[in-house]
Amino acid sequence: MPDINPTRLMGDLNHLRSIGAFKSGVHRPTYSADDMTARHWFAGRMREAGLDVMIDGIGNVIGLAAATGPRIMTGSHLESQNHAGWLDGPLGMVYALEAVRAITEAGGSGAVAIDVGAFADEEGHFGSLVGSRSFVGDVEEAEIDVARDMTRGTPMRDALAAAGLAGKARFTPDLSHYRAYLEAHIEQGDWLEAQRLSLGVVTSIVAIWQYRIVADGVQNHAGTTRMAIRKDAGAALMRLATTLHDAFPAVAGERAVWTIGRIVLEPGQVSIIPGRAEMVFQMRSDDTDRLSRMEQCLTEHVAAADLGGPCRVRLEPMRKGVPATMDTGIQAAFESAAQRHAPGRHVRMPSGAIHDAQSFARHMPSGMLFVPSIGGISHHWTEDTSVDDIVLGARVFTDAVALVAAGLA
Amino acid sequence: MPDINPTRLMGDLNHLRSIGAFKSGVHRPTYSADDMTARHWFAGRMREAGLDVMIDGIGNVIGLAAATGPRIMTGSHLESQNHAGWLDGPLGMVYALEAVRAITEAGGSGAVAIDVGAFADEEGHFGSLVGSRSFVGDVEEAEIDVARDMTRGTPMRDALAAAGLAGKARFTPDLSHYRAYLEAHIEQGDWLEAQRLSLGVVTSIVAIWQYRIVADGVQNHAGTTRMAIRKDAGAALMRLATTLHDAFPAVAGERAVWTIGRIVLEPGQVSIIPGRAEMVFQMRSDDTDRLSRMEQCLTEHVAAADLGGPCRVRLEPMRKGVPATMDTGIQAAFESAAQRHAPGRHVRMPSGAIHDAQSFARHMPSGMLFVPSIGGISHHWTEDTSVDDIVLGARVFTDAVALVAAGLA
Repeated sequence: MPDINPTRLMGDLNHLRSIGAFKSGVHRPTYSADDMTARHWFAGRMREAGLDVMIDGIGNVIGLAAATGPRIMTGSHLESQNHAGWLDGPLGMVYALEAVRAITEAGGSGAVAIDVGAFADEEGHFGSLVGSRSFVGDVEEAEIDVARDMTRGTPMRDALAAAGLAGKARFTPDLSHYRAYLEAHIEQGDWLEAQRLSLGVVTSIVAIWQYRIVADGVQNHAGTTRMAIRKDAGAALMRLATTLHDAFPAVAGERAVWTIGRIVLEPGQVSIIPGRAEMVFQMRSDDTDRLSRMEQCLTEHVAAADLGGPCRVRLEPMRKGVPATMDTGIQAAFESAAQRHAPGRHVRMPSGAIHDAQSFARHMPSGMLFVPSIGGISHHWTEDTSVDDIVLGARVFTDAVALVAAGLA
Repeated sequence: MPDINPTRLMGDLNHLRSIGAFKSGVHRPTYSADDMTARHWFAGRMREAGLDVMIDGIGNVIGLAAATGPRIMTGSHLESQNHAGWLDGPLGMVYALEAVRAITEAGGSGAVAIDVGAFADEEGHFGSLVGSRSFVGDVEEAEIDVARDMTRGTPMRDALAAAGLAGKARFTPDLSHYRAYLEAHIEQGDWLEAQRLSLGVVTSIVAIWQYRIVADGVQNHAGTTRMAIRKDAGAALMRLATTLHDAFPAVAGERAVWTIGRIVLEPGQVSIIPGRAEMVFQMRSDDTDRLSRMEQCLTEHVAAADLGGPCRVRLEPMRKGVPATMDTGIQAAFESAAQRHAPGRHVRMPSGAIHDAQSFARHMPSGMLFVPSIGGISHHWTEDTSVDDIVLGARVFTDAVALVAAGLA
């Protein structure tokens, strides 16, 4: 089997960490100067590995192998959330590059082409997985026309122009050549760490179902309006939120999650009874039947809140995704490689976060490998993984790519 | 007894309604161009009524009567909340002016001086009752130096300069001459309307006790963090809010009120578990013992939330006012006048809103009269009172001023 070079691997990861460094993490939002520096540097490293490299019109950095047989795509993303961690994205990119280098050094993969792709904006500054969806042909120009940076408000077209990408074509290959997509990523949760495991073989990527819950009451003076006649939209939503937090454990099971990350009271002033309030309820599971039962529970509680008064309460669906199932063959390859390098220290698990692999899973067999996140922390500059786990993950990822390539040969 | 002129009264009120008109209400924030237009116009009307008028360095419009005996101050305010109603403030101003005119026409008040004052910024764009507190000597220059417009952020000094008031002295009279302060105002609640009454004799003005409640949890990814290990600061505060709404009726009695008008989750993003949350809990009562019992209840529930985990929860007092008691002699004058004009259609009641009268009550006998607010609505452009109630209120207010003056003669 191929053997990776841990010094080269950590060297590349640490170099990426130095571009847009923020405390012990990085700040490389999509199409920022630091993000583009990272893309161009990584393109150079891909060329040194023998790949034919382009940065296309959406910022995808695509390295194509010379082989003309069945193709495997490997990769992840290079940009970061704002002021976030150093491994979310880059870990999978350097694993993919190191796999190509190690397999080439071990004699190559024959007619099977092992490509590497850094897919733009997995972190969703401008939308949802727009780079990987572009690659598989699922993005229309109109989507890019209207997209804006969620933090800064910059139109995506302006950001692409500033990054030197205006007018460049997006690369959308004939997908019939592609037989597999493999991606590695930090777990971003504490499931592996809590069980003292080092590797997670992803079985599926959760779907996100998301709702806006709106309460309409009556805005009034907080001093002169008797309690008995108030229609406080804020109180109504906070009561509903608590009821939902109490009811959901019974329907969510062990792995499904739900979150209220945002609530807005209007007008939001200390001496005014809120006349309107709005919150976003998000739930995630890899099991559509479970999501349907959770939605049923949500619908019933919202209806009860509306019926109970004194405010009107309504539920507005915002997003209802489909879980992505990872290919069983690729899962088996990851598991076999994990068992070779870390017997008994791996587990099959769903992914609670979304990843580029779900864009690919709609079009080709896809799989993902997780390494532990210390303390379960991600999207924060303290995000980290032990060097031992990073190196182990690279070995397992490289073996799995080699196994899948061998299966296609 | 003196007799008011309803046409003159309604004419003045409707003229004020035309300055900074917004829908059927007005938009006259303190020191805005429209607010200053209203002040100068009203100063002219005061002069026509025989008063010696100044606009002082804080924008108070003060009309002094020529008499040199014991003094009575009557008044309210001219500015409005943003995009608010036409009567909140101006009603009391025109009542005071009409009382002076009617009493003068009926032969005057002898040696007793009946002054009229429009006190700046009762609506609190820059602080709390700064105009009336300035008049009674309770404002230092340093308070004005640091005050800013809560909506626009403009420093108060800049707003005063733009209004042409920079460098003018604030008028702070020898209060020993003043024996009474009388103010009329719309109720801003539905207490009178709900009982089909036309007049409220205010017994006291509530104190506001206000607290910041802060929850500290752990910010994390809303997809990858298991429910079992979450420390969701938003969920913690919403649960506490609901517990407080359930517990407070037992301690608040019939008239005390409590409000959560503001809650902020951090970072407030739909896919991130809130790591910190903050809400403002406000309570109002005219009974300090009751406020103490409510605070005890609040403290116990916050402590229980903190102890119960998983988030730390703490209570930070922001404001702890003192209720203002209205003078029993002035209450009797209002009640006697009310009984004369509207037998059985008046009631004694506390004020749930704050008013300039509480600045005066610290220094002299003070009293207030309420007229009904249709639907209990105020601080909104739909705020209104029937013409019958407006005219009746003016008759009662004028009679009461005459009664108090007679008592001082």
